[in-house]
Amino acid sequence: MPDTIPADSVGLVHPELLHIDAPITLDCGRSLPSYDLVYETYGTLNKHASNAILICHALSGDHHAAGYHSMDDKKPGWWDSAIGPGKAIDTNQFYVVSVNNLGGCSGSTGPLSIDPETHNAYGPDFPIITVSDWVKSQTFLADHLGIQQWAAVVGGSLGGMQAMQWAMSFPDRLRHVLIIAAAPKLSAQNIAFNEVARTAIKSDPEFHDGHYTNHNTLPRQGLGLARMLGHITYLSDEAMHEKFGRELRNDTINYDYGVDFQIESYLRYQSESFVERFDANTYLLMTKALDYFDPAQEFDDDLAKTVAPIQAKSLVISFTSDWRFAPARSQEIVNALLSENKEVSYAEIESYQGHDAFLMPIPRYQEVFKTYMQRVAADCGVL
Amino acid sequence: MPDTIPADSVGLVHPELLHIDAPITLDCGRSLPSYDLVYETYGTLNKHASNAILICHALSGDHHAAGYHSMDDKKPGWWDSAIGPGKAIDTNQFYVVSVNNLGGCSGSTGPLSIDPETHNAYGPDFPIITVSDWVKSQTFLADHLGIQQWAAVVGGSLGGMQAMQWAMSFPDRLRHVLIIAAAPKLSAQNIAFNEVARTAIKSDPEFHDGHYTNHNTLPRQGLGLARMLGHITYLSDEAMHEKFGRELRNDTINYDYGVDFQIESYLRYQSESFVERFDANTYLLMTKALDYFDPAQEFDDDLAKTVAPIQAKSLVISFTSDWRFAPARSQEIVNALLSENKEVSYAEIESYQGHDAFLMPIPRYQEVFKTYMQRVAADCGVL
Repeated sequence: MPDTIPADSVGLVHPELLHIDAPITLDCGRSLPSYDLVYETYGTLNKHASNAILICHALSGDHHAAGYHSMDDKKPGWWDSAIGPGKAIDTNQFYVVSVNNLGGCSGSTGPLSIDPETHNAYGPDFPIITVSDWVKSQTFLADHLGIQQWAAVVGGSLGGMQAMQWAMSFPDRLRHVLIIAAAPKLSAQNIAFNEVARTAIKSDPEFHDGHYTNHNTLPRQGLGLARMLGHITYLSDEAMHEKFGRELRNDTINYDYGVDFQIESYLRYQSESFVERFDANTYLLMTKALDYFDPAQEFDDDLAKTVAPIQAKSLVISFTSDWRFAPARSQEIVNALLSENKEVSYAEIESYQGHDAFLMPIPRYQEVFKTYMQRVAADCGVL
Repeated sequence: MPDTIPADSVGLVHPELLHIDAPITLDCGRSLPSYDLVYETYGTLNKHASNAILICHALSGDHHAAGYHSMDDKKPGWWDSAIGPGKAIDTNQFYVVSVNNLGGCSGSTGPLSIDPETHNAYGPDFPIITVSDWVKSQTFLADHLGIQQWAAVVGGSLGGMQAMQWAMSFPDRLRHVLIIAAAPKLSAQNIAFNEVARTAIKSDPEFHDGHYTNHNTLPRQGLGLARMLGHITYLSDEAMHEKFGRELRNDTINYDYGVDFQIESYLRYQSESFVERFDANTYLLMTKALDYFDPAQEFDDDLAKTVAPIQAKSLVISFTSDWRFAPARSQEIVNALLSENKEVSYAEIESYQGHDAFLMPIPRYQEVFKTYMQRVAADCGVL
């Protein structure tokens, strides 16, 4: 619990719900008759609606990006280090919109929602959603909020891919795009990790082919394993070393198959807390959205051709210790943009925190991020 | 099946069994009243018994390092690329001994063996074995074979750690040590991957606290997951890309949670074949042996002090694309040896195959390996 709300916080915030009562046709060929999007906003939309920033979340993220839901909250939103008064995304200047992706489990329509046709939860029958589908669904939120053009669309990891997709799908609806710790598509290794995570979930006997809620249970073991594995890929070896090294939990080796090292008990704790707050079917869906993201595929793997429609100016950021989406992967995006003569800035941030660095208050990262956002502010007339 | 045995193969080989009818006290404080070691030999021991090479295997390896067990064998032993007439470990010169580690599941006493006290299989009650225990148990095999001093002890990965332990524990029983693709101890990330693998096995309902054989079942899902994950860490991202890229299995995206990409079907196949041939309790044991390997711990983490007793000359080899035990980890060993004025050679082999490179016939690797082994041959009087 924050005893008092910090001065640079957006403060107490509450989610809002938009019901979109029109069918959406999805990339998979299926459609949803209607759907909800849950979102939060921070700051104030100016009269020209020119200062709106869209935040795109990562695999296990949600719409709660900044501030607190109550004075009892132990932690603020997931990107509170970047969003708030005086922060990189300065809520004194910008109107920030953060939305839970379709297929999510935090309030937007997803596997936990009731299918209006069957009156049962969708569960595993919820259609597979792509990054393009997210962007398409979110244009209706923009319309609803009266935002014809985002000052910027910003995201890290899967959110960075989504930001990139916004710039490709709706070139005239954003002036800037910030693609952080992302890649133009997953590598075979990335897909392999996702497949191990999915196999863990699906092979948990409590999964019941995705109908676990009908059986009043949860695939805790499988989802927990998926989360443990995810955590390893989010951290660098160095970050783990820094945090845990080979420290023993009880100062001594047990010579059994229980927990000996701190890193083991950390992973167990992380997985146990995750399974209580995240839906396994959504986890499967999000990993497939990641695997399927490959916008260059329909352009014969020519990424330059793929990004050719982009009109937004771009900032691409990578982190030296990120081995999930290494700097070389971000540079593929930068090179494609450059070869099409797009206006692109690129920063590779020295860091030891691994992929998770994009969530951390690393001074040079904050400086680069803030400086660019000041340019966005100038461009949209709020400076 | 090899239509004919290749000329540079050791040919048809068969395992032998040594029963050691004397108790061994283990690092964990427990002891085994007696035990078996299964091993293979290739080549001929010379009259001074000066040309013997001990091969140490990795996590899921065994004593079958080279040659074929029958004309029906599809594949030769796991290190056939390095062992045979004219190969790096030239069986025209050397007498090669390859032994299944204690706690293994290929014939040496392990969890699948009958406990003479209870007349039941040990199962999960088999004591945890350390790398030191392996070395100690193998001195009896050396004695049995009349080998007072190995010309060299050679191993890759966990086998490299074991070779290093031989040199530290019994300095006068080997003239050379070859430590390939190894590390002086696991990092927090290495331990984390092992813990995910163990959790997958232990949380499989078919594991039955390790007593699966009593229930006529196997923890197939858990062990399969462990193997899938292991495979990812054995290969580099580049090697996976080379092998699979993002190729689709059926030329099209399925928009479901089944297999879309070749890499997924490869991992499934690998895991399915592994669970039929490997024991889950042994897998747990081997990963713990890895986690516990930390010889410098009793020397206040001073690796130089730890290697001070070594008398053997050393060759340390690492591979540029190995992210499980990266070159920097091998260099820690090299630096410790150098600071104690030990005779050490070091080669970092350019490769894209990841950790598995140590098993591959990479030309420069073979050249370095063979050249060093010629020096070993000269040293033991067979050249």
